[in-house]
Amino acid sequence: MDNLLRIGIIGVGTMGTAHAQYLQQRKINGAELTAVVDIDEDRAKWLEENLDESVQVFTDVEAFLESGLVDAVIIATPHYDHPKLAVRAFEQGLHVLCEKPAGVYTKQVRQMNEGAAKSGKVFSMMFNQRTNPLYQKLRDLIQTGELGEIRRINWLITNWYRSQSYYDSGGWRATWSGEGGGVLINQCPHQLDLWQWMTGMMPKRMRAFCFFGKHRDIEVEDDVTAYAEYENGATGVFITTTGEAPGTNRLEIAGDRGKVVVENGKLDFWRLRVSEPEFNREYKGGFGAPECWKVDVPIEGEETAHAGITQNFVNAVRKGTPLLAPGEEGINGLMLSNAMQLSTWIDNWVELPIDEDLYYKHLLEKIESSTVKKSAGSVALDVEGTY
Amino acid sequence: MDNLLRIGIIGVGTMGTAHAQYLQQRKINGAELTAVVDIDEDRAKWLEENLDESVQVFTDVEAFLESGLVDAVIIATPHYDHPKLAVRAFEQGLHVLCEKPAGVYTKQVRQMNEGAAKSGKVFSMMFNQRTNPLYQKLRDLIQTGELGEIRRINWLITNWYRSQSYYDSGGWRATWSGEGGGVLINQCPHQLDLWQWMTGMMPKRMRAFCFFGKHRDIEVEDDVTAYAEYENGATGVFITTTGEAPGTNRLEIAGDRGKVVVENGKLDFWRLRVSEPEFNREYKGGFGAPECWKVDVPIEGEETAHAGITQNFVNAVRKGTPLLAPGEEGINGLMLSNAMQLSTWIDNWVELPIDEDLYYKHLLEKIESSTVKKSAGSVALDVEGTY
Repeated sequence: MDNLLRIGIIGVGTMGTAHAQYLQQRKINGAELTAVVDIDEDRAKWLEENLDESVQVFTDVEAFLESGLVDAVIIATPHYDHPKLAVRAFEQGLHVLCEKPAGVYTKQVRQMNEGAAKSGKVFSMMFNQRTNPLYQKLRDLIQTGELGEIRRINWLITNWYRSQSYYDSGGWRATWSGEGGGVLINQCPHQLDLWQWMTGMMPKRMRAFCFFGKHRDIEVEDDVTAYAEYENGATGVFITTTGEAPGTNRLEIAGDRGKVVVENGKLDFWRLRVSEPEFNREYKGGFGAPECWKVDVPIEGEETAHAGITQNFVNAVRKGTPLLAPGEEGINGLMLSNAMQLSTWIDNWVELPIDEDLYYKHLLEKIESSTVKKSAGSVALDVEGTY
Repeated sequence: MDNLLRIGIIGVGTMGTAHAQYLQQRKINGAELTAVVDIDEDRAKWLEENLDESVQVFTDVEAFLESGLVDAVIIATPHYDHPKLAVRAFEQGLHVLCEKPAGVYTKQVRQMNEGAAKSGKVFSMMFNQRTNPLYQKLRDLIQTGELGEIRRINWLITNWYRSQSYYDSGGWRATWSGEGGGVLINQCPHQLDLWQWMTGMMPKRMRAFCFFGKHRDIEVEDDVTAYAEYENGATGVFITTTGEAPGTNRLEIAGDRGKVVVENGKLDFWRLRVSEPEFNREYKGGFGAPECWKVDVPIEGEETAHAGITQNFVNAVRKGTPLLAPGEEGINGLMLSNAMQLSTWIDNWVELPIDEDLYYKHLLEKIESSTVKKSAGSVALDVEGTY
């Protein structure tokens, strides 16, 4: 047992509690939960009463980090604290598994990535949707060229319904100072990650249209339409909101060799018998189009979700297993999110990589001009319905 | 028989021939084909040989209009000529059924509408997709409030595959001087019409991203992503191209009372038990959402298509039947199309109604700077695959 990886959790609210539960239930091979820290005294008291006796509960992060009780940490605090806590943990020689998003602004996340590189420790992001076999298969189809050159990406992800009551449940929720954004930073980090992870492409420029507090009494974005252009001429549209019901989650990716749609937990693949450019070169008729096959692609495996990412992280530390979600990649999805907000604020195109100082300047202005006077108290919600 | 409406066709290429065929086959009650005009001598000779003997063939439009042989005309010439021919026909006291698009630029189409109003004659547009029971039902659901207030419209209409060979088949095709645009003016007028016809809403401003000759050796747009904002806060995205296979035709409209998706010839309707704003006001929990019902809506009737619009036009003249596609409404879809091109040209927002003189100035510049040196000859294509 002495080579079990000793894991500690920083921030034990909604998601931290979920991580604590499956760790305590010994669902992760080769790891044990040894300590947690939450700066909220009431929460710490609840944890003392509800976690196993073997788990040490701290309210002071420094004491926790220096306790010698943990080899690795899961960071599940509010977003702003992710990078600075990760940097501090790396300095302490600990491995880090960080909840999404990587942070709130790319400048801060770049510093986290630099800290990770310097430490040489294992660094992973909790991109649990990378364990979804549908998205793994779609990535496989793209990366091996089955779709040909990518031409269009269209993601309509509006099934994030959140009521005013949800937003009122946490003082930090949906505020510039508490979260640094809305649907992009809280609900969409998975999609923003999958978008560039599956395609292996980042846009060269974006033009986005965010609405702030359109559907709810909040100050951050709750309705977004974003347009992206890529170096190879491909285009993309990403649409999201927390204000619609029943909502939709439909991803379509079109390449010059075929098309994939992921919707309702199903992947549909249409493959052209010859590539579109080849057909176009040879064809001499009027309204003809390339022969297209509807293909049944086997989707194997289960979505192992949060526990799957944690298991992969533990295996990476203990056995050198390649990470499914390397921490350094967390900046990519955040870059898309930051670019969408920045494009709206300056009402213009944004080139990528974005001007991280300009983004940070705008973010600070939003924080300073905020009129939100919410209670600082938070409620840990049941995670049913979250991802 | 003496009260049959005598119809003449101006321009007997691809679509004009289709109209001639069903009229000759007496598929339209109360109407007969009496004359046609095509300025192309070879085409006129072919028409002499292939149409019924009772049909008079002209090569001179004035002689046709003044012949006294027709009470009404179907205009099926290249787009630029629609408004001026319609205006001339109205002056001659004739009823007009005009092929889509209404014209190429709104300034010209506004003049056509003024000519129609002055004449008091029946004026209809060949918006044959308005006869599709799916779209009629969707319009019904929207107009009677079943969807509630409209919040989002997303139309992905990329199943317009056209090869280079198609574009090379007609000298006027896909040129600024010949068509005045590409996929927006040739393939999409139906969707641009349905979009505003079904919702009863025109955007207040648009931001669009057109690519010109991206997939084919043409000078006009063949790939478009357009974003629209409405007075009530609703947003819309319209995506189209002629360069993709197999392509998609998926329309989603979300309201605060439900959602409709039209795809693969099927309408799916999700209805909220109580409206989203009402749920939001009352709900006090965390991740809850309004109860949503999947509803089977009966779709009755057949798509009567071009012949259906022509029959409705004939009935309007003979019996005063209300028009399904009043000619004056043709300007609305064209306004959307013009706005998308103009937004791209000025790389900025466009307010609606657009500045018609500014659009016309840009269009003239495109025509003047065109380097296309195509043969003026055209080939009448089999209409299979067109709409």
